[in-house]
Amino acid sequence: MPQTETIVRNGINVTQLLQTIEATKADDAVGTFTFRAASTWKEGTYNVGTVDGFTHAGSEDATRSAPFVLEGDEPPVLLGGNRGPNAVELVLQALGFCYAVGYVANAAARGIEVTRMDYEIEGDIDVRNFLGQDGPRPGFTQIRVKGTVSSPNATPSQLTELCEYVQATSPVRDIIANPVPVTTSLEIA
Amino acid sequence: MPQTETIVRNGINVTQLLQTIEATKADDAVGTFTFRAASTWKEGTYNVGTVDGFTHAGSEDATRSAPFVLEGDEPPVLLGGNRGPNAVELVLQALGFCYAVGYVANAAARGIEVTRMDYEIEGDIDVRNFLGQDGPRPGFTQIRVKGTVSSPNATPSQLTELCEYVQATSPVRDIIANPVPVTTSLEIA
Repeated sequence: MPQTETIVRNGINVTQLLQTIEATKADDAVGTFTFRAASTWKEGTYNVGTVDGFTHAGSEDATRSAPFVLEGDEPPVLLGGNRGPNAVELVLQALGFCYAVGYVANAAARGIEVTRMDYEIEGDIDVRNFLGQDGPRPGFTQIRVKGTVSSPNATPSQLTELCEYVQATSPVRDIIANPVPVTTSLEIA
Repeated sequence: MPQTETIVRNGINVTQLLQTIEATKADDAVGTFTFRAASTWKEGTYNVGTVDGFTHAGSEDATRSAPFVLEGDEPPVLLGGNRGPNAVELVLQALGFCYAVGYVANAAARGIEVTRMDYEIEGDIDVRNFLGQDGPRPGFTQIRVKGTVSSPNATPSQLTELCEYVQATSPVRDIIANPVPVTTSLEIA
């Protein structure tokens, strides 16, 4: 169906979104990505990471002019110098970002205008296992998320239903709530 | 046992590490943390997040003078403007940081000097489910990590064994590889 006009809602190009959906229906490969990150240890608990290119439908994306640089560290109580958030905090941040993208993009597709979308995320963890002792699992035992949304043209039930939909289709929620296979190799240089 | 000297190895204060382990043995609460993040939607797929304080043993940590600010966005092919890494890339970055901290800290405790610790992390994902179509799970279907380590005083078998130990005790690996309960609520403002 020819589009003569580009529809943008919530800053989301809905026309492009619908075209992307059609493209993935026509060719499964259009939906496939391999994302990457790299990290370099600096000192103590301090690491510097980069996120740069990725593979989409088997080809390298070339739209990023420079890598994103992230710093990771621990607070003093966990032997660090507070030069960045720690790794588990980054996971919480990723969940908030993922929820927000899913909410706003799906709202745009449904004709829902969003004027505010905030998340507060928290996770409980016990470091005893990490420290080599008996204790609960190494990772979060529970994560809680509180979203706050405002919309001038949607009913509360539409907004609540969308929140349920986003939970069911969020990549980061799926990664956290369900098992992902991780293979790890080590090269000695 | 009284310490008259502080031992630092790989930039890790081993004396503090051992004291922390003893403290968590004496009082389980010393091992407990609640970490937090917050995110604010700006426009389209662009969000700005903050990581600031956390709760340790029931009390608020006050060592961070300012929040860490992170930007999240999507590349153009996923309707964004490349103003930051996307959420699933952040998860990969977190895994690299977590592995590095675990490796270097445990190496320090074992007397292993580390002079290089790099990680490359990649994850395969299919966005069809996120786009509301049939397809694989929303999250990563597979994550691969390649570490590179150098040590002047450890054998290859010591370094390989440590890599196995770190995988078993890494908080972020556990969060990814095993299910974490996530509860999500929505407030309409």
